[in-house]
Amino acid sequence: MIGVFDSGVGGMTVAKAIEDLCPQLPLLYFGDLARSPYGSKSTEVITACSCRNTDFLLSQGAKAVVIACNSAAAAAADTLRRQYAVPIIDVVSATVEKAASVSAAGRIGIIGTRATVRSKVYEERLQAIRPGCQIVSQACPLLVPLVEEDWLDKRETKMILRRYLHPLRERQIDALILGCTHYPLLGDLIQARVGRKVRLVDSSAEAARHLKEFLDKNPQIGSNMAEQGRQSRFFVSDSTGPVQRLADRIFSRPIHLEKVDV
Amino acid sequence: MIGVFDSGVGGMTVAKAIEDLCPQLPLLYFGDLARSPYGSKSTEVITACSCRNTDFLLSQGAKAVVIACNSAAAAAADTLRRQYAVPIIDVVSATVEKAASVSAAGRIGIIGTRATVRSKVYEERLQAIRPGCQIVSQACPLLVPLVEEDWLDKRETKMILRRYLHPLRERQIDALILGCTHYPLLGDLIQARVGRKVRLVDSSAEAARHLKEFLDKNPQIGSNMAEQGRQSRFFVSDSTGPVQRLADRIFSRPIHLEKVDV
Repeated sequence: MIGVFDSGVGGMTVAKAIEDLCPQLPLLYFGDLARSPYGSKSTEVITACSCRNTDFLLSQGAKAVVIACNSAAAAAADTLRRQYAVPIIDVVSATVEKAASVSAAGRIGIIGTRATVRSKVYEERLQAIRPGCQIVSQACPLLVPLVEEDWLDKRETKMILRRYLHPLRERQIDALILGCTHYPLLGDLIQARVGRKVRLVDSSAEAARHLKEFLDKNPQIGSNMAEQGRQSRFFVSDSTGPVQRLADRIFSRPIHLEKVDV
Repeated sequence: MIGVFDSGVGGMTVAKAIEDLCPQLPLLYFGDLARSPYGSKSTEVITACSCRNTDFLLSQGAKAVVIACNSAAAAAADTLRRQYAVPIIDVVSATVEKAASVSAAGRIGIIGTRATVRSKVYEERLQAIRPGCQIVSQACPLLVPLVEEDWLDKRETKMILRRYLHPLRERQIDALILGCTHYPLLGDLIQARVGRKVRLVDSSAEAARHLKEFLDKNPQIGSNMAEQGRQSRFFVSDSTGPVQRLADRIFSRPIHLEKVDV
């Protein structure tokens, strides 16, 4: 089984992208809703949560772990790789490669939580693989609560997006990293605001693509015959009404959320 | 020492109100920022956090505990009173009395987090002391993130408030409970929106008044001579930039936040 964790349900956009790319692959998903959101918290707290989440997924039989949360990938991916023997796939590494390759002008925007933007992980990795590119980062802390409230079509959401995206438009970016797994749900609004010429790089889709490449190269991890036909399971450390609705919406089907104490 | 806890910094509006009413009384404040916000979480998770917070305050020498968070008071006050021998003062009980007494027409509005509104604690207690009153509740989940982002004077905040307060205006309430300790920071905007005839009942001020009455009746708790001259201390389970700014703003002076693992 492949483990996938996020602070909440945002990472389900990654799980859904994996399901679309690798329909036979059963997943173990864990959403840490008892401690969500991560994006407003410190590196130290996010790292402690990420270790606990990984312990849980391994205890359930995960053979590889996908960090489906940009804030956790930015804060804790290096620590997890040092501390755990299993392969760790993270949403940030996958996304950086794509963004560097699709930007013609080398002017790349990044939107994410405070924790992701503060970490500068996207800037540093982009500069490493495409030296000299211009990068504009913008923390968008209100977008996660707006998505979690399902305010996707509200006027206020559009106004707040306009405010956040204005500095990126000013700098004439030609690629924009959606550096939070909640943001694909706002993809159309974001595309409309930045214009069709700006290429959106969806970190959820890129993480799924990266996992698939990894499994193609390491077939022993995904191909355990005993696991074929097993169903994906979705665990959460807390559960309330809007979360269920959002999960069902992301998968376009009813998702059974199993509450666990972690 | 009197212990005060909240999910984050919102409860500092209660601590500040206590300081204004009882300037000689040193406080032990704990803000559970590693797990905030509580308002979107389940009763079970909020109760577990509230017990942990209370244990911490007692370990630091608290002789009474103020639950300075409506979501925690709604979810966990009864449990804390059953499990702990010290007096528990909660923000909800204080506020209900005041609201019932100031509403002439008996049409009372309540705004709060999802957890507070879902609990129906305000409705039940108001009906108990003022049978037949009409109550209109509205969950306002985006207000806490807006306050924590310091978006107090932004146009989007006014629009979102208008949306949330519309059903309360329609029902012609004459008193409105600010059922979340973040909301006093939006007091002027809320008053402007509901009109001057609606009496706002500030749960932070009421909790402080309630504590003062309790200490006047139980002088042994607040009057330990050895504690006079001691300073209040402010503990947090996580700390990031905006939190410090908000704490300083609430107290109109620099607040030293001490990070602790709880």
